[in-house]
Amino acid sequence: MRNTIFLWVLALGLIPSCNAQKLLEVNQARLENTLISLAEFGKKPNGETNRVAFSDADIAGRDYVIRLMKEAGLAVFIDFAGNIIGKREGSDTDLKSLGFGSHIDMVPDGGNYDGIVGSLAAIEVVKTMQENNIKTRHPLEVIIFSNEEGGVMGSRAIAGELKPEALTVVNSTGYSMGQGIERIGGDTSRLKEVIRPKGSLAAFLELHIEQGGILDREQLDIGVVEGIVGLRWWDVTITGMSNHAGTTPMNLRKDALLAGARFIQAVNEEALKLDGKQVATVGRIKAYPGAPNVIPGSVVLSLEIRDLSDRTIDLLFSNIRERAEAIARDSETQFEFTLLDTTGKPALTADWIQEEIRRSSEALGLSHRQIQSGAGHDAQDMALICPVGMIFVPSKDGISHSPREYTSAKDMANGANVLLQTLLSLDKK
Amino acid sequence: MRNTIFLWVLALGLIPSCNAQKLLEVNQARLENTLISLAEFGKKPNGETNRVAFSDADIAGRDYVIRLMKEAGLAVFIDFAGNIIGKREGSDTDLKSLGFGSHIDMVPDGGNYDGIVGSLAAIEVVKTMQENNIKTRHPLEVIIFSNEEGGVMGSRAIAGELKPEALTVVNSTGYSMGQGIERIGGDTSRLKEVIRPKGSLAAFLELHIEQGGILDREQLDIGVVEGIVGLRWWDVTITGMSNHAGTTPMNLRKDALLAGARFIQAVNEEALKLDGKQVATVGRIKAYPGAPNVIPGSVVLSLEIRDLSDRTIDLLFSNIRERAEAIARDSETQFEFTLLDTTGKPALTADWIQEEIRRSSEALGLSHRQIQSGAGHDAQDMALICPVGMIFVPSKDGISHSPREYTSAKDMANGANVLLQTLLSLDKK
Repeated sequence: MRNTIFLWVLALGLIPSCNAQKLLEVNQARLENTLISLAEFGKKPNGETNRVAFSDADIAGRDYVIRLMKEAGLAVFIDFAGNIIGKREGSDTDLKSLGFGSHIDMVPDGGNYDGIVGSLAAIEVVKTMQENNIKTRHPLEVIIFSNEEGGVMGSRAIAGELKPEALTVVNSTGYSMGQGIERIGGDTSRLKEVIRPKGSLAAFLELHIEQGGILDREQLDIGVVEGIVGLRWWDVTITGMSNHAGTTPMNLRKDALLAGARFIQAVNEEALKLDGKQVATVGRIKAYPGAPNVIPGSVVLSLEIRDLSDRTIDLLFSNIRERAEAIARDSETQFEFTLLDTTGKPALTADWIQEEIRRSSEALGLSHRQIQSGAGHDAQDMALICPVGMIFVPSKDGISHSPREYTSAKDMANGANVLLQTLLSLDKK
Repeated sequence: MRNTIFLWVLALGLIPSCNAQKLLEVNQARLENTLISLAEFGKKPNGETNRVAFSDADIAGRDYVIRLMKEAGLAVFIDFAGNIIGKREGSDTDLKSLGFGSHIDMVPDGGNYDGIVGSLAAIEVVKTMQENNIKTRHPLEVIIFSNEEGGVMGSRAIAGELKPEALTVVNSTGYSMGQGIERIGGDTSRLKEVIRPKGSLAAFLELHIEQGGILDREQLDIGVVEGIVGLRWWDVTITGMSNHAGTTPMNLRKDALLAGARFIQAVNEEALKLDGKQVATVGRIKAYPGAPNVIPGSVVLSLEIRDLSDRTIDLLFSNIRERAEAIARDSETQFEFTLLDTTGKPALTADWIQEEIRRSSEALGLSHRQIQSGAGHDAQDMALICPVGMIFVPSKDGISHSPREYTSAKDMANGANVLLQTLLSLDKK
């Protein structure tokens, strides 16, 4: 028994740290420098960067990234949806490509890490292979997806999920998605040619900052993503009876906002009651008529539920609905649920890719845990056409979509090294 | 014992109904006709009437009322605040006036009874006295207050409570209060001359529809108003932490809207917990940033408390505040209360006038109960200068400020008869 424990300690603790010395690693300083350089495109006088898709800053940043890709020996082109694709030949022409990448566009007033860490790390990984004369069996494809923050546009196009209606959506630059695609070098009349058939890639990997703050709080290096949650939105309309707040006694009211308040608590209680990581949120609320001296006659609020499992979303919603019915009976109000756009289907990552990410982390001496992604990513759509894996690195305090985003250079390099090692492992399959 | 019961039944049941035959009563049909005629001023194609203060319809309606007042033998003038005042001499020149009246302006899309029943009944009472050659000892003053719905303007001016700032407030007609006063025959430069000193009237009576639905529900004829509630408004700001609704686990949230929901429930519970008729209402709410996929970082909501006693308002607010502190501790949020305009001080009616209203109702064979007014009225400001009494008549389902307001002609006449009998009783004092 003692021997067994000793061997176990040796295997988990000592051997990986010995191995880590020998494993190929990316150039942390170079990776950090490219991140600092990219942050110049769209930099404002206050030092923050604004680089929304289709903006001049986005176009200039993309040009910079294309230069980096070319310098890493990639054959670069822009597909008709504006995705930047850099290809590298493999030694075995029968094998399908291993894809990896992320995005470099930002939300308005976003930060310099969301999407960007994964994009620049992908290029750094290829640069490291180039410097070390490593030739993979599979062809490699670095994909920098277009307009992720405006509705995962580029990856949707590749998965064949970009609806024509979406092209009319205007973002904060004032350009519609259709105009934007043309601005960044795409062609809206040929979007069908962008679609990749199911099974056309061997796998797709995405490195990304972790937006829930779990890795940062638990002081862990790497998150092995088990899946990207699905999400459903409802508008919930509660109807009571509007009345004079001065003349209507407390016990004769049909106060829609009081019923709404009970509902918001019930949503929270039901989400906490189930085992698992499901989340349910009421983020928006409006009471009508909305005057301090009028008892609200109706309330409209939003309900969002996210989970890795569609069945858990079903169950939680059914429990919430039951609670709503009880509140309605008790308060003499009516509840009506309207399901809104439900495109966010849960996407599980491939178990065998998770396993390779875990092994690579251990080989590099990095701590890790399995984690789910509560936010949507390009990998979610890529999962429709090939097996995917996602690697998370810590984001300070879990902050994202904010100029206060921060991931240390060491954490970025850790993620890039796991990406590199995982690719090399997958390449053997 | 048997005899006593017999006498009691006789006193309450038989004698009043005998007396009722002998008491002077108003002309119900005429009263109803004037109400139907007044509803023509501002009538829309759909049959509803819109007669907001300062509108052309308001001015035309006022002219109609002035004609009615003159026909009833009143000496009519418009004071500098636009109040229409009709005077009738008394036989004793040493006595102060008995005032009575209400208002004829409406909220936008209001009804034909709120204020109007009391105004036209006051004129009908004088008309009935004229027809029956009744001369009172006290002088009489019928007051049709200007712009009640826009902030009890006319009665505030009489009480010396109309603030200069109020004159800039614009109502739905597009006219400011200052412009409006000029339009209806007042003079904003001479508003000080409108003020009546404390004790300058012997008493003031107002007949009004009951807006809480209590009389209608309990099938009672007359409400003897014990007082008009005071009210206070607060803005309550709740601060938590805004975060990603997908990536932030349920147990790590500082959800300001969830705290707000608990607060709304606590407000309701605390208002129900105290004995008495106090009411507390949250009528307006806004969650920030207000997106379905973002946990609200802050919430601003309104809190209104009304009661006849300032001490009860204090106590209820203190209990609510304690609950807020507990919720704040529990949810890691902060609550901040900002007291808004607090002009609505409670106004009690005079006990001895209540007693006369009660006696008059019984003498007329009308059922009655003591009741409080949850809504504000001109009598509230008149209480600052003289003893006041208020008489309520049923409004169907307690509906007010709506085209669906309705009070039967019989109920209006009941109220007018109680007003007449109470005036005749007060005149003996």
